[in-house]
Amino acid sequence: MEVIDLRSDTVTKPTPEMREAMSTAEVGDDVYSEDPTVNRLEERAAEVFGMEAAIFVPTGSMGNQIALRLHTEPGREVVCESRAHVLDWEMGMAAMFSGCQLRTVQGERGILRWKDIEPALATTGLYYKAQTGLIWVENTHNMAGGSVTPLAVMRELRDGAHGRGLPIHLDGARVFNASTALKTDVATLTAGYDSVNFCLSKGLCAPVGSLLVSSRKNIDKARRIRKALGGGMRQAGVLAAAGLIALDVMSKRLDDDHANAKLLAQKIADVDGISVDPAEVETNIVIFRTEFDAPAYVASLKERGVLASAINANTVRFVTHHDVSQEQCACAGEIAVDVAAEMLLETA
Amino acid sequence: MEVIDLRSDTVTKPTPEMREAMSTAEVGDDVYSEDPTVNRLEERAAEVFGMEAAIFVPTGSMGNQIALRLHTEPGREVVCESRAHVLDWEMGMAAMFSGCQLRTVQGERGILRWKDIEPALATTGLYYKAQTGLIWVENTHNMAGGSVTPLAVMRELRDGAHGRGLPIHLDGARVFNASTALKTDVATLTAGYDSVNFCLSKGLCAPVGSLLVSSRKNIDKARRIRKALGGGMRQAGVLAAAGLIALDVMSKRLDDDHANAKLLAQKIADVDGISVDPAEVETNIVIFRTEFDAPAYVASLKERGVLASAINANTVRFVTHHDVSQEQCACAGEIAVDVAAEMLLETA
Amino acid sequence: MEVIDLRSDTVTKPTPEMREAMSTAEVGDDVYSEDPTVNRLEERAAEVFGMEAAIFVPTGSMGNQIALRLHTEPGREVVCESRAHVLDWEMGMAAMFSGCQLRTVQGERGILRWKDIEPALATTGLYYKAQTGLIWVENTHNMAGGSVTPLAVMRELRDGAHGRGLPIHLDGARVFNASTALKTDVATLTAGYDSVNFCLSKGLCAPVGSLLVSSRKNIDKARRIRKALGGGMRQAGVLAAAGLIALDVMSKRLDDDHANAKLLAQKIADVDGISVDPAEVETNIVIFRTEFDAPAYVASLKERGVLASAINANTVRFVTHHDVSQEQCACAGEIAVDVAAEMLLETA
Amino acid sequence: MEVIDLRSDTVTKPTPEMREAMSTAEVGDDVYSEDPTVNRLEERAAEVFGMEAAIFVPTGSMGNQIALRLHTEPGREVVCESRAHVLDWEMGMAAMFSGCQLRTVQGERGILRWKDIEPALATTGLYYKAQTGLIWVENTHNMAGGSVTPLAVMRELRDGAHGRGLPIHLDGARVFNASTALKTDVATLTAGYDSVNFCLSKGLCAPVGSLLVSSRKNIDKARRIRKALGGGMRQAGVLAAAGLIALDVMSKRLDDDHANAKLLAQKIADVDGISVDPAEVETNIVIFRTEFDAPAYVASLKERGVLASAINANTVRFVTHHDVSQEQCACAGEIAVDVAAEMLLETA
Repeated sequence: MEVIDLRSDTVTKPTPEMREAMSTAEVGDDVYSEDPTVNRLEERAAEVFGMEAAIFVPTGSMGNQIALRLHTEPGREVVCESRAHVLDWEMGMAAMFSGCQLRTVQGERGILRWKDIEPALATTGLYYKAQTGLIWVENTHNMAGGSVTPLAVMRELRDGAHGRGLPIHLDGARVFNASTALKTDVATLTAGYDSVNFCLSKGLCAPVGSLLVSSRKNIDKARRIRKALGGGMRQAGVLAAAGLIALDVMSKRLDDDHANAKLLAQKIADVDGISVDPAEVETNIVIFRTEFDAPAYVASLKERGVLASAINANTVRFVTHHDVSQEQCACAGEIAVDVAAEMLLETA
Repeated sequence: MEVIDLRSDTVTKPTPEMREAMSTAEVGDDVYSEDPTVNRLEERAAEVFGMEAAIFVPTGSMGNQIALRLHTEPGREVVCESRAHVLDWEMGMAAMFSGCQLRTVQGERGILRWKDIEPALATTGLYYKAQTGLIWVENTHNMAGGSVTPLAVMRELRDGAHGRGLPIHLDGARVFNASTALKTDVATLTAGYDSVNFCLSKGLCAPVGSLLVSSRKNIDKARRIRKALGGGMRQAGVLAAAGLIALDVMSKRLDDDHANAKLLAQKIADVDGISVDPAEVETNIVIFRTEFDAPAYVASLKERGVLASAINANTVRFVTHHDVSQEQCACAGEIAVDVAAEMLLETA
Repeated sequence: MEVIDLRSDTVTKPTPEMREAMSTAEVGDDVYSEDPTVNRLEERAAEVFGMEAAIFVPTGSMGNQIALRLHTEPGREVVCESRAHVLDWEMGMAAMFSGCQLRTVQGERGILRWKDIEPALATTGLYYKAQTGLIWVENTHNMAGGSVTPLAVMRELRDGAHGRGLPIHLDGARVFNASTALKTDVATLTAGYDSVNFCLSKGLCAPVGSLLVSSRKNIDKARRIRKALGGGMRQAGVLAAAGLIALDVMSKRLDDDHANAKLLAQKIADVDGISVDPAEVETNIVIFRTEFDAPAYVASLKERGVLASAINANTVRFVTHHDVSQEQCACAGEIAVDVAAEMLLETA
Repeated sequence: MEVIDLRSDTVTKPTPEMREAMSTAEVGDDVYSEDPTVNRLEERAAEVFGMEAAIFVPTGSMGNQIALRLHTEPGREVVCESRAHVLDWEMGMAAMFSGCQLRTVQGERGILRWKDIEPALATTGLYYKAQTGLIWVENTHNMAGGSVTPLAVMRELRDGAHGRGLPIHLDGARVFNASTALKTDVATLTAGYDSVNFCLSKGLCAPVGSLLVSSRKNIDKARRIRKALGGGMRQAGVLAAAGLIALDVMSKRLDDDHANAKLLAQKIADVDGISVDPAEVETNIVIFRTEFDAPAYVASLKERGVLASAINANTVRFVTHHDVSQEQCACAGEIAVDVAAEMLLETA
């Protein structure tokens, strides 16, 4: 049975071009800043984002946590959306490593607005209240179904933060999906942000790695934090070689994934027991509510060769990516419809 | 001008009996566990709560933070209400000292129910998700207007937590207000809780100090954490002497404060521009919404001799206590009415 | 049997004058900075040390840990003497609360010299090495037998630190013993230090409390850290009242304790099985090596009414203080001689 | 000019076999434990060390820090040698991430003995003293010149630790150098240790990666900590493929590096201004004292094409490895002799 893996875009495998680049990459000891391929990737990332500097890290979680530490000190609050990745999927590291408390604000479809953030800030200096240290944005927003924060809102948030003297970080694990959906480029989308983290794995297909882009001064400090976290790899050029292809080539093809996600959503939109609005599927993630038990549904899908994630008791997630074709997505949609019908029958 | 201080019950001063007891207290070096008055207070607190042991700490914040550390390890989540004191007024120490992330759940009038907590738990063991380590209850709930979690709900939460293998802590800074309102005793109200922190200052009028009650084993460990935090005081019997009176005498008179708070709420209930339901004033705290600017209102009240707190732009808090009489509360209520009228006029 | 307690000067009890002052102290809510007695004590401490500001804390450990946090960030190294109190008796809080690593340097009789410190510094900025953040001095040095760092060395250390752009903190738990021994005043002795922590309990006899003195800016920040640690007490004026007497009256009488310690050391100096040089007993602490088992010796002394501390298997500490008279010290010395003879007999 | 890079064995580049293996490696998403090559490497590492399980991590620092966290809780002390890598080169993470204090003990040539460790332990349970949580051994010992702790001493330390109820971890970054020098295997050498960390990069030539081996239970917990630190890479099989060759092939050839280091040491042993005993060069590291300025010496060597490290003002380190031949080492030795003569002339 063919398996159609829609659990996450993290399952993408390196392309043949990446394999080839990895096997011939020029390398050196990156702890001594002597790996030419890593250096080239970092320079290229900074260039693409219009920032001063970049640092290569083994995972997006590390990139985010370095940023969090960079901009804060222990005892500060970080304002983020109520279903942010940094809250739900980074192991409590904001607290455990940086000693910071996350202050959550609910955004409609995961999209924060400045008016919602403002009441959550503590910047009066009152000595017996923890002070806000950082504003945290996630675009696209994973758990809100890959929703896209528009350019105007990105700017509103940035200006709001800076107006209060606060830094603002973008968890841009999937920022190329956002820029693709918005038909802009990432430099425009993230202009003025104090730092951006983005992933080369996920939709961009590199096997390993993310980059944090920011000012030269911040990246110099980030190098210390990366070393502390155990992210100071040696001949990392073997990974960076794939990363360069991810960054420059694979970032151009995300429209396909978005179209496939939309197709999938349309297939299941009218099915009894499932709630999803295809119009809200803006990128490569489809999250939908089920009237039946989501884990059981996911288990049944698996028996039919479709892998998905149960986010909770009544929520399922599909993620499209390079390694599933349009045809496979259509097929998965049909299986999803059939299995939903079975679930409803069983429940009835 | 007479000042009526309704900012907090923390402003209460030691009574003459407390002063007398402090000046004659038998003392010793409590780091060596040789202060007889501290020992007596700790034994008495354990007895009153029907727990094995107790430890005297300089503040309720320290008692809470010791409990949090006791029951968790770094990287765990602590589930608490969305306006809990531990979230808003303890300086981010859950993160900064214990490396734990607070996971908030909204309770109606600050009162958590198990069905609301359950979806917020992470106890599946999924290795890439931070696991829940502790359930945190606050009774009475300060920022929810001194609301009281009833006995049945206290038990529901305890049984829910234990059913999932989780410890449960009560931030009982004002637990005597809760037991008074519920016409029960604190031992009954907190039976089966893994630890309870309560304050001798606040409504009980001691100048300094709180107690954490729990099992013998936990309190032995708490002694280490207290020492680490810098709470291992020497001849602390001078404070414990006042604490014994707070615990045994002052805990019986809280009905008066509750009646005064109700009186205050009734005075302002029908005033234009103020929203408060006297029926919801269960203990010694009155929190109400204002249509006008709360900080400006509080400033005007201060000019008339009434001190209150602006919780945010449109919320004001009055707290009644031993050092304000029924007459003063009535007077404060009248001033509150007058000033509200002025505010509305200015706004109009 | 009369007990002569030489375990520590922490066992001193409040004097009758202190008791009286505590019972009549004017108090307020110190979290709101409204306790007039605390305010007076803080102002007085700043004045005595010639510093801009001071903050009252429940223990010396808290004062030290606030200072450590004030001057550092996580990942920094703090250079201290190899038997420093901050290393051996503060529960690992440098690591646990501030995330800092202690880098130890051995000083002769606990007295650091700049030439010993210099090779232990890391200030080159090398990104993959933890950088030094703070120099830590202890004067008098408890575990080195109350040894005194002379004024010239205090200045050498301060100038060395500042020359390298590093702050320097004095753990002056017993700084009045140091200034007494040096016949100078604490302001002269600590001039230019970035912060000093000193204890009102210990030799100064207050029941509870220490003060951290520093710049206004640092003390403002210290107030946040104190609140976080749970040191924000309410009507702390009851303690501060005793503290004022400790600071202004009891600090003048330490010569007596020093003479008594010298007397004690002389009594036991020529005893077989004990090694101590009375010339090195500069303040109120006598630490000596034993050829016999120190814990057994301390146990035998206790049977004869003399309380002492076994520092380790072959080291014993006596500490003189206000609550033991010259006569009692002489008597304790004689008992120490007798028991040593018995120990040797048993060993032989 | 040919460059002979003796700065560290971390500069080794992947071999052609590794390149080939990486380009054809079967991969999957390792966060879902589905990367077959990573799984194979972890199983193989466990097998080689005779332990239950293993986990692949991007760096040795991460492996060590995971182990430290595994075995401790905040506030514990970790006993290590006074020049241990964990103290000097891991960014203070013992404190910053695990909240633990390092308690240093000096070993002769970096080799700890149990009798030296014992007085540094705190396991009495005294509540106001930080308790020992872990014993930490480094074999070979980098900063002590690659010195080897013999098998009998490895067992003495293990039995000593376990006799006191303490876990013991081996920082075995270069444990294959140790086993090669001792003509034993790593399973025998590390038998009974609670965990061992070893590097695939360094002498074993893999581009990136280390493994932590321990019990199944510990490795399950390690997976959480690795995720928290940002070490949960996705298609890490591309790295693990090289790691398998490092582990099974490259670990057999370290005798060559050791012979080359001995050769180097012999070349410079009789040179004026240099102190080194070739008999003490047991593995691939040569550390020697210089009478002249070490950084200046290293700078001069560099001009002649030999790269070395200045450890401090008067200490230099050479490290031999796969990418420098016997001939190159001989040549480097001659250059080292010539440059030393020049240094002495300049100094004279």
